[in-house]
Parts: sequence; C-alpha cells; structure tokens
Amino acid sequence: MIRHPSFVVEPWQLRETELELDVLAQTESVFALSNGHLGLRGNLDEGEPASLPGTYLNAFYEERPLRYAETSYGNPEAGQTVVNVTNGKIFRLLVGDEPFDVRYGQLLAHERMLDLRGGVLQRQARWISPVGREIRLSSTRLVSFVQRAVAAVLYEVEPIDGATRLVVQSELVANEPPPTVETDPRAAAALQSPLRSEEFVCNNNRVVLCHITRASGLRVAAGMDHVVEGPDGTEVTAESEEDLGRVTVTADVQPGQRLRIVKFLAYGWSGQRSQPAVRAQVEGALAEARHTGWEGLVDAQRTYLDDFWERAEIELEGDAELQQAVHFAMFHVLQAGARGEQRAIAGKGLTGPGYDGHTFWDTEMFVLPILSYTFPAAAGDVLRWRHATLDLARQRARQLGLRGAAFPWRTISGEECSGYWPAGTAQFHINAGIADAVIRYQLVADDDAFEHDVGSELLVETARLWRSLGHHDAESRFRIDGVTGPDEYSAIVDNNVYTNLMAQQNLKAAADIVERHPDRAAELQVDAEEVASWRDAARAMVVPYDESLGIHPQDEDFTKHERWDFSNTDAEDYPLLLHFPYLQLYRKQVVKQPDLVLAIQTRGEAFTAEQKLRDFDYYEELTVRDSSLSACTQAIVAAEVGHIELAFDYFGEAALMDLDDLEHNTRDGLHIASLAGACMAPLGAFGGVRDYQGTMHFSPCLPQALTRMAFRLTFRGRLLRVDVNHRDASYTLMEGPPLDISHYGHAVSLETEATVRRRLPSPPVLPSPRPPPGRAPVRRVPER
Amino acid sequence: MIRHPSFVVEPWQLRETELELDVLAQTESVFALSNGHLGLRGNLDEGEPASLPGTYLNAFYEERPLRYAETSYGNPEAGQTVVNVTNGKIFRLLVGDEPFDVRYGQLLAHERMLDLRGGVLQRQARWISPVGREIRLSSTRLVSFVQRAVAAVLYEVEPIDGATRLVVQSELVANEPPPTVETDPRAAAALQSPLRSEEFVCNNNRVVLCHITRASGLRVAAGMDHVVEGPDGTEVTAESEEDLGRVTVTADVQPGQRLRIVKFLAYGWSGQRSQPAVRAQVEGALAEARHTGWEGLVDAQRTYLDDFWERAEIELEGDAELQQAVHFAMFHVLQAGARGEQRAIAGKGLTGPGYDGHTFWDTEMFVLPILSYTFPAAAGDVLRWRHATLDLARQRARQLGLRGAAFPWRTISGEECSGYWPAGTAQFHINAGIADAVIRYQLVADDDAFEHDVGSELLVETARLWRSLGHHDAESRFRIDGVTGPDEYSAIVDNNVYTNLMAQQNLKAAADIVERHPDRAAELQVDAEEVASWRDAARAMVVPYDESLGIHPQDEDFTKHERWDFSNTDAEDYPLLLHFPYLQLYRKQVVKQPDLVLAIQTRGEAFTAEQKLRDFDYYEELTVRDSSLSACTQAIVAAEVGHIELAFDYFGEAALMDLDDLEHNTRDGLHIASLAGACMAPLGAFGGVRDYQGTMHFSPCLPQALTRMAFRLTFRGRLLRVDVNHRDASYTLMEGPPLDISHYGHAVSLETEATVRRRLPSPPVLPSPRPPPGRAPVRRVPER
Repeated sequence: MIRHPSFVVEPWQLRETELELDVLAQTESVFALSNGHLGLRGNLDEGEPASLPGTYLNAFYEERPLRYAETSYGNPEAGQTVVNVTNGKIFRLLVGDEPFDVRYGQLLAHERMLDLRGGVLQRQARWISPVGREIRLSSTRLVSFVQRAVAAVLYEVEPIDGATRLVVQSELVANEPPPTVETDPRAAAALQSPLRSEEFVCNNNRVVLCHITRASGLRVAAGMDHVVEGPDGTEVTAESEEDLGRVTVTADVQPGQRLRIVKFLAYGWSGQRSQPAVRAQVEGALAEARHTGWEGLVDAQRTYLDDFWERAEIELEGDAELQQAVHFAMFHVLQAGARGEQRAIAGKGLTGPGYDGHTFWDTEMFVLPILSYTFPAAAGDVLRWRHATLDLARQRARQLGLRGAAFPWRTISGEECSGYWPAGTAQFHINAGIADAVIRYQLVADDDAFEHDVGSELLVETARLWRSLGHHDAESRFRIDGVTGPDEYSAIVDNNVYTNLMAQQNLKAAADIVERHPDRAAELQVDAEEVASWRDAARAMVVPYDESLGIHPQDEDFTKHERWDFSNTDAEDYPLLLHFPYLQLYRKQVVKQPDLVLAIQTRGEAFTAEQKLRDFDYYEELTVRDSSLSACTQAIVAAEVGHIELAFDYFGEAALMDLDDLEHNTRDGLHIASLAGACMAPLGAFGGVRDYQGTMHFSPCLPQALTRMAFRLTFRGRLLRVDVNHRDASYTLMEGPPLDISHYGHAVSLETEATVRRRLPSPPVLPSPRPPPGRAPVRRVPER
Repeated sequence: MIRHPSFVVEPWQLRETELELDVLAQTESVFALSNGHLGLRGNLDEGEPASLPGTYLNAFYEERPLRYAETSYGNPEAGQTVVNVTNGKIFRLLVGDEPFDVRYGQLLAHERMLDLRGGVLQRQARWISPVGREIRLSSTRLVSFVQRAVAAVLYEVEPIDGATRLVVQSELVANEPPPTVETDPRAAAALQSPLRSEEFVCNNNRVVLCHITRASGLRVAAGMDHVVEGPDGTEVTAESEEDLGRVTVTADVQPGQRLRIVKFLAYGWSGQRSQPAVRAQVEGALAEARHTGWEGLVDAQRTYLDDFWERAEIELEGDAELQQAVHFAMFHVLQAGARGEQRAIAGKGLTGPGYDGHTFWDTEMFVLPILSYTFPAAAGDVLRWRHATLDLARQRARQLGLRGAAFPWRTISGEECSGYWPAGTAQFHINAGIADAVIRYQLVADDDAFEHDVGSELLVETARLWRSLGHHDAESRFRIDGVTGPDEYSAIVDNNVYTNLMAQQNLKAAADIVERHPDRAAELQVDAEEVASWRDAARAMVVPYDESLGIHPQDEDFTKHERWDFSNTDAEDYPLLLHFPYLQLYRKQVVKQPDLVLAIQTRGEAFTAEQKLRDFDYYEELTVRDSSLSACTQAIVAAEVGHIELAFDYFGEAALMDLDDLEHNTRDGLHIASLAGACMAPLGAFGGVRDYQGTMHFSPCLPQALTRMAFRLTFRGRLLRVDVNHRDASYTLMEGPPLDISHYGHAVSLETEATVRRRLPSPPVLPSPRPPPGRAPVRRVPER
C-alpha cells in the first residue's frame, strides 16, 4: 500500500499526499492512534466515508453465544468480541449549507501524516463545496500516552474565498451501524447495537454518554469537552440523547479568520464500578485534560516519545523504506502496549476489530521479546494480566482433566473463546510461551517482586500442566501426544518438537524458581517430589529426529506424510486455509508458519549448527507463510544458518506486512505481533541477538544492502547500544553498571559509557533453499 | 426396560401388561411400526400423553443451516433433519363429555402388544371416566408391508355399565409442537412448524392435507378415510383446515354394542411432482386400501411376514429373553428396510428423530449383512440408493481435493451433513464399508445386472478415492494418513488398520470387477494403468504391527499413547464423550467401539489366529462400548478367539440394547444397526458364519446357556438352514441347487433338500480378558 505513489518514504513519518479511497480501510488501520488503553482508528473526522469506524477500550467486550454444528464437551459456549464504543472522533462540518464530504465537491488537496516522533495524526485539506465555497481544514488528533483516558483533536477551518457560514457538529455517537459481515473467519463478528444507554448529560460544551453492554454487563462512559475560538458571534450549543451527544458551533467566518476547536475526549469503563463512578471518572479526566490544554498534551506526548525512542530506536542505513517501516512498527508496538496496565495486548492491538479483539500466543512470543528489551515495564504488565487470569486458567485445566493452568488460546478477559479446538485449545504451547516470556522478562528486567509473586506461580502452574499432559512411555521417555504446534496446517500431533522443547524449558524453569524461593514453593504446595518429577520430565522429554533425512520432523510423524503438491497449487489458492479443507492440510507436509524453525529461534541451544542448517533448508521448501507470524522468524533463523540475503528479504516482508497489506486484511487492524517481529527481526537476524542462559549474545552480520545498523537494548538495568557495519560492531554501555556480553561466542566486557569495537567474521556463502513455488519473499535487491 | 415387571417374555410378542408412563418415551420407539417407507411411533391413539409424537416418511427432511463457532473451508453449510409429518394416528375420544386420558379417571387395565408375526400393534384398555362411566377400548394399528403408502387402525369402543354418548375425533394434525430441545448432541434438532399448507380437502369421511416444507421444498400429502360401524343414529362429519383434518363420529352406545372405526391412512411425498399429483397419489392409495379392507390388510401383513420368517428366523433355545429379543430385532430390521425402495436406512430407521434421521456407515456395515442373508433385495435397494447419490459424492470428493467419490458420513439425501469433520468426513472408511456391502451383496444375491451397472461404479469410484487419499512412502509402502477409523475416541490418525484393510479390499475388488467387465471399464474410463495402480496400492498397503507388544496397533501411533485412567473414571462418567473433551480422548488409549476388533471380523483372513486372540484381549481392556455398535462385534470376535461365554454376554447386551435402553436414548428411536448386529451376532459368534473368499464358512459353538440354535441364510439362490447343539451341527439345503460350504475349514457338499450333520470340536478353555472396570457386559449366566 505504501508503494502507492501517494505515500512518501520518510524516516519518521507516514504521509499520504492524496486521499486514496480505495485504500481507505487500510489507512484507517495504519493511521490508528492508541496508547494501549484507548484506541481510535484513523477514520476521517467527518465520519464518512468510512470502512470500519472504530473506537476501542482495552478489554471492553461484548459476549455472544458460540454455536457449533455438533456440540461436544469442553467447547466454550460464550465468545467475546471487542466493542466499537462511543465514537468521539466525529466533526461534521457544514460549509454554507453543504456538508463537507470528500466524495462531493472538489478536493483540491488532502494530506494525512502520522508523526512517529510527535505521536499525532495530522490532516490538511483544501476543498471547494459543490456550490463553490473554498475552505482549508486541518485537524490534529492524539491519544495521550500520559493521560491514558484521554484523546484530543485540534480542528481548524478557514474560508479561502469569501465570508462563509460554518457549522461544526462535534459528536459522540454510540452504537454506530456495523459494517457488512465478512465471511473470512479471520474477520471479526459484527455486533448490532451492543450498548444500552444508562445516562446522558450535557453541560455547557461538555457531553457525557453512559452505556452498559447488554450481555457482558460492562459499563462505559465517554465524554467530550470543547474549547472554541472563533470570530465574534460564534455560537456554541450542546445537546444529548441516548446514543448521541452533540456540540454545535456556528460561526460566520471571513477569509483570514478561522474557526478553531479543541475537543477533549475521555473514556472510562468498568465491570464493577457503579454508573455514577464511571461517569465521574470520565468527567475528572476531561477536567484534567482541559486543564493541561492542547499544547500541554502535545508537549507531553513528544517528551514521552523522545524518551521511548532514546531506548528503542533501530537505525537502518541503506534501505529508506525499511527504516521507515521499522520506525512505524516500533511506534505501533508502543501504541499497543504502552498503557495496557495489566490488560492484554490483542492480536490487532486497538487498531481494528480483527480476530474479535482477541489475544493469542503472539503477545508473549512475538510482542513481549521486543517490549522486554525496549520497554520492560509494559512487558511485565502483560504478564501480570496473565497472572490475574490464573484462576480461569486453572478452571479450564480442570475442565480438560488436567492439572495446573491451561491458558486460553484466544480470549479478551481470560476465558477460552476458541471455537475450533484442534487449532485452539490443543495449542497448549501457549502455556510454554507464557513461561518463556516470564523467563525473559525476569532476565531482562531483574524484577525481584515479579519473580517472587508472579513469575513463580505462572511457571509452577504451567509446569503442572505439562506434567499432567505428558506421560512416560515404556522406555521411560516423556511424550506429549495429541497437541497442536504453532503450524496450524498440522494438528493433534504427537511430540511436536517446538512444544516439547518449550515445555522442557518451562518445566526446568519452574523447578529452578521454586528452589530459589522455598517460601513460594510452600505457598504453592510444591514439594520435592513434584520438583523432581518436573526435572525428570524435562530430562526425559522426547525430541524426535529423523535419521534417514537427517532433520528434526516437526512432530513424530510429520516426515512420513505426503508432501503438499505445490506445483499444482495456484497463486490464488493461498492462503490455503481458505481454499482447502483442514482435513487435507493436516495430512500432508505443508507448513503454515514456522514451527520447527521457531524452535530453532527460541531453543537454539538444543540444536547443533549443522542441524539448524539442514532443518531450516528442509522446512523452507514446505513453508507457505499463510500466517503473518512467519517472515520475522524465518528472517532470524535464515540469518543464523547463513542465508543472510534471504533473511533480508524475509525481514522486508515482515516490516511491510501492513504497509503493503501483504495478508490482505490490514483493513481489520494491524498485525501487532508481526510488527513486533519486524522489530526483533533486524536485531535477531543482523545483530544475532540471543539471550540464551542469561547472557546477551551478539553475532552481527549485515546484508549487502544495509550499510549500517544501530539499535538499543535494555538489559538488567543497562542501556546498551550496538552499531554495526560490514566490517565491525561497536558495543556501547550507555547507562548502568559494567556488563559482560558475548560477541560471536567470545566474552566482551563493557564499561559504563564506553564503547568496544570488534571485527566481524566473513559471512558464509551457501546455496539458498527454495521456498514453495510462488511463495518466495519479494527480493529487496533484485537479482542481476 | 423389558425387565420391568409389566413386560412379559414371549417368543413372538412384545407385551406390556400395564401402562408405565415412566417408560412411555421408550415404548413409543419399541412399539413403532414401519415398512421402511412410512413409520409411526408407538404413540397412544389419543395423542396424549406423548413423549415424541412421530410420523416419518423415508428421506422426507427439512433443511437447516449448520453453524460453526469458527468457519473453515469444506464444512457443510446446510443440515438435514427428518420431519415429523402430518400425524394420522390420532383418535380423540369423549366419553360422555370427558376426554379419555389415561392420566385422569381410573385405568382398570391397559395392555399393548407388538405382534412380531402379525405385524400389528394391539392395544386393550378398560377405563372409568372421572364421572364414573366405564368403557372398553381396543385398537389395532398396522403399517402395511404390502401397500407401502398405507397404514390403518381398527379402533373400537364399547361402554360397560350403561348407555354412553361417545364422540371420536379421528384427526390428521400437521406441525405438531416439537418436544423440548435436548442438549445431548445425539438427540435430534427440533424443528418448529416445518410444513406450510398448500391445500386441504374433505369429502365424506375422507380428508387430505397437502403441505410443503419451507426450506427443502418437499411436498407431502396425508390422507385418511374411514369405515364406521355404530348403533343406529351414529353420525359422521368431516372438516379440514390448514394443519388439521378431522372426522367426528358421534354415537349413543348401549352396553353390548360398540363403535367400530377403521381408519385408512395414506401418505405420499415428492421433491419433484406437483401438488395435485401428490394429492392424487394419496387419494389413490386410500382408495386401494379401502378396497382391500381392514381384514385384507391384516391378512396380507401376516402372509408377508410368514414368508419373511421362513427365510429369516433365528431360533434360540435356553434363553427365552434373548429368543424374544432376537425376534424383536429382526422384526425391526425388516421394518427399517422392507420397502425403502432405493432410499437410505436411517440410524434410527423410522422409529424416532434421533441423529436427525441421518444414515451413517452403520447401514452398510451392520444392517446390510443380515439383510443380505435374509432379504437380499432390500440390501440391493440400499446400495442402489447409494449409487443414485454418486454425483453428490463425486462433488464432495472434488471439494476435498480428492478423486473418485467421497460418500457423506451422515446424510438423508446424499449431501454431507456432518458438522464436526474429525468424527465426520474424516471417517473415509464409510466408502470401504459401502464397497464391502457391494461385494457381499454380489456374492450372496448373484445379481448380474447390479454388478454390471451399480456395483462396478461404486467400487471404481471408491477405489479412486483411496488411491488419491493415500500415498507411497520412501520404501514404496502405501500409507493412508490423517483419517479417522470407526473408534471415534481417536481421530485424524495415520494408517488405521481397519481403514487400510478395508481400503485394500476395496481397491482389489475394483480391479477385479473392471477386469470382469471391460465394457464398464471403458465407460468409467478405467485403463490398465489405473487398475495396476489399485493393485499396487492394495499390495503395498501399510498394516502397522507393534512387535514389542505382539499386537496390531489400532493406528500407527495408538500404542504409544497413554492408557486412559480407567481406575479413576466413575460409572457416571460414561459415555465419556459427554464428560471429557475429545482433546483428551484422542490422545489416550481408550476405544469407544471396536475398530481393530471390527477389522478382525470384516477382514479376518488378514490375521492369524494367534494375532486375533492377542489383539482381541489387548483391545478388550480398552474398549468402553460408548457406542451401540460395539457389543455385536465383540460377541462375534470373542467367540472366534475362544471366549465363548464372554461372546454370549456381549450378544445379550447387543440384543437388549433397546429393550433394556442400555444407551439411555431409546426414546429418540431404536438403534437399527445394533438390532441388526444383534441378529448377526448369534450367526457370527455361535454359528461361526463368515463369507470370506466367496464361500460360506461355519464354525458353530454354543455357549453353555443355549441348548440349541437354528438359523436360515439365503446364499446365491439357496435357502440354507443350520441347526446347532452342543454336540453337532446340521446343514440343510432347503431350496436351490447343490452347494459346497465349509464346516470348521472342511468342505461339506450339500444336496437339495438334504441334511448333513457334523460333529463339533471341543471349545477351547481360555482365561477371559478384562474389560475396563465397570464396563464388563452383564453376565447372562451369573457366576457361582
């Protein structure tokens, strides 16, 4: 999409120089603003045209029944769907008596720009109405990182060619009609009028609407307040009804004059507090925002982001498009996680209704790694949210006949919402993914209270799950049968290597942590027998290996299956899940997304270098990347095994996933995990960043097209900066006490505020493996 | 249920001597009458009380959407549900001004009796109304085997203690309110008012109602006509409206007099013919029935059944209860299949709405064997129905990316209606089951036209399916991966032994048949290469064997899985599928119904005697019999491997499945396949009947409790009678040319109308295997 001529490549901005209605849906997603608590899609101020109007509050959902053609025990009966709450973005503008609508009249100029350092979405337009009145319009929208309940818009209009009567209706609209329903299972279930009015109030320029959801019983209040500056005689009136709040500004404006409106928005919700309390919370937030003022909000936003980029910037030289894409990706990762504050990070963040607003394993396995290294507090918050849902996970485990905790495959509030268990609950690996995130967060953040209170319980309960899910065979080996790994084109398999290796790490980490915290062990009723049983299961874990092929089968039987007939699969047959039954996908060798290759990334120390290369090459021929969680992993492992240029191509694909709408569903929201993966990819692939065994390892190696890469990492209270070119790498400890790191396996001692430079070895020259026909990533550097 | 003191053990009758309302639902099923085209549940004449009012026409269904919590490619979107059509069974009776209702007044006597030789359901009652009028009532109901569109009721009332005004309302009622909805997935989906009126007419004592289904667009007409005999002054009036037809008979009757009404019922339906045509068809059938008269219908019914029993009777001496149960079972198998005439036989026949009225693999694998041996024309008709649905099966195969034909796992009219594919479409073995039935029917019926026209195409298209479903591995072995075998507690497995052995037979039979019929081969575009590829796949078929355990694993990985924890499974946890998720069932060694053991029955020549014994004993410990399709198979294989007393217990369970309501769902209809299995069980177990390789084999051996068993078989134009006691077996060729059979592997030549007697070997003495705790069959002969 960004390749559209209207989009400009600039490092710190995403700019659309003309309004392209054919990509309006996608721009609503990429121009979305969020602080992790409140999210506004990049809808046009005037409300229409719109593809998906969207205003979201993290974890605010409606319940709906899940129906099955054939019921069976253990299927969740209730689903959860993110609600498009009261829309406060709307400014309807009348020019003379003509409504401003980009589809009518003449749009002389239109530009939108997402400012990645300022944290605002700016819009400029010049328009001639059907009867010939010309105006200039600008708006700047922000969702505050500092005041998490607050958004604000600066809206300005001026006439160009003569005195004009301008009417601006600034609105709050609840229960907006949902868009037409999608048949793509990945798109969200639309909800009709989920909100029931509880109260509506208006008072001067301020309106507050209070609603409650019909089924889930969650309360939401949305409020707006305004500061209006206009010529003498400008009038402001306010009104409200159940689903509508409106402040109307009427002004006669001369050329050279302008009408300037600052709209402050505030949202609050609760599943427990009373309606007056929720209303008061919103009115309080509005008061604070008004007190801060527009300029104050903008300044605080900039300061917040300056601080973030100081710790998180990734610099790439040699590919301006990817530089922009990585800044964009990191910005959206921040937006998804910044102020979640013990809520989940949804698959789409707060940028759209895709996947019903659910959170998956992506959060822990793709989003938290980069957050842990750049914004560890946000990573800790997500894990605290998981911890808060432990009781539900324990109940689910009981229902499944298992011990410990079985976290949901997809959820908003902690209940399992997966309606197809072979690609849902059977993906038990999510539990090991949560454990992995706990281990990494502890390692990076050095957060003792977390480890003691939160991490220990998460590790213990997930270890208990694995111990009860697996069993010993006649040779005393520990098997985990009948589960689904990350590759959803296989399901209900025995001894999935990724799952078993991740469970092994989980079991071992649980044993270690309770030995470090005997008080917690006692509280969690862990005794020496149980710890020994975890250590034994970890030690005896089956990791299948196919001697005849010299590779790890993805699961015990994978390599016995027929290969997918790629040569007779057309380009339009992808994604395969929309054109072939699971029945066929499951029984053949075809990989939706890295599974064994992901194990190489996450449990690299369990593979030899030779195995990694052979495994990668084998699965490369089978991996169709029908999931957005593919390219980032393939980039990292491709680089590790020596396919550095292929890694660059995969990095390019990961980074442009949403900007180029490669999955054709960016309209439903951004792929937050893929964006996070696109930030980890250059670190993991070209920085060789690994955190095995508590040490930061680096093995940098740049692809030809990049002349330089620099990035920053937070690690145990240090801020580390790594600067790489084709010749050498510089490591700078910008903050914090001395630290030993590893450069290509050699220890390097870093002193505070000092830089150490090391030469890079020559990269290997290897024949490239062949992805399935038509499924190779786009070459960043065209072959000569 | 039959153990209820109200039920009497008699060889040719099922008699209830008191009305037991607590088992009313079950009696509606066991007292159901049907001819395979039209079925009437055993509802009380007066309509109430009723559990499930039911009147069914074979293949008359309504369509309904199938909903999925998560959609995926290839899931069927439309379901089919059998419709409770216009109810013509109803006689409402007013005694004085009190409605006759068994729940009010005083029921002095009530007896119902299903006459298995007469083919009628008789009822006798004596009742005193709340105000003290005493009457005697009797009704006799039949569904004609001879006039397939016709049912009739003889209804008689007489006052006992004084002149009484009697009003009888004989009704047709459409769109009866459905019963409360069940949550048990095995129960049918209830349908609200599926019928829309097209016409209603009344004329003298005759009423016809014509309807069409709302979604599936099928037309049905139901008509009734009456012959009334009563005292002078008896008045008859008729009326009709959209969903109601009524003929009202009013009479003042003295003691010693009686009111006698013969009600003729006729039904017709069509998906193609016009409403006038369907109406005329019903009126024609009514005219014929009235012309035949009540006595004529009763006589023809008796003659039809005399002829049937002559060819199908199974005599058991030594266990009167099982003698009755086997007669009952055979009667219901006949009722399900007699006049289907190229329609399916549903899982519940026409006795109830269970399983939505769908047909499964049970028909070919459990019902057709006994039908082939006793009523081969009916078996051929079912296979002609399958053949008529070949185009739908070919389309389904295309949709699944396969060649040939993929017959539906569950259907009424041929479309796949399975809403859970791992236990639905993935059970490809149904296709080999159809092929097996084709092979057996050809063998038994010697029907050349069928073989040439129908059998050849069914075998070729199913062979094509198998060839495309399997593939060769690196050692050139032919594997069938990712399918589900008969045991639904495992799913999506590799190389299920039952499936592979049945597919092997299917492939070989297809190759043989096209070589016998080169003209058909040409028409079906089968060339020598294709035939060779079938023979190769059959020869190279993988049949897994576990060397360390010395048994066949049910599928390649089965024996690696953990054993189900039977010792911690309570009695009330069965059936397991209602108390545990599939997720757990699939990953453990627990067997819902015989799978490997069924392979021993159906492909016995592929196992050595030692393997059969070890396999049976191994699976016996794992088989919980949560399906009614268990005990009959276990009986046959238990007997073969030498556990003759265990076989007797299983036979007892199979035979009493519905009479004792062992699955707790007889209310929804009878388990026709289990009843058929209960007929095959004594033949297979105690007669040792097998038809491997075109010869009839017998290895008789009676359990201690049975002193004698005799049965009849039709085979290639012969009627064979086998009479067995503990000492010897007599074989009599009652009709047809000489035949060679096998007795314990020794050839025996039979001459027409001659009897040959052979001694039996002594039965082996073996230790009995142990079914899971609490899941052993009830001992027929209590241990001392």
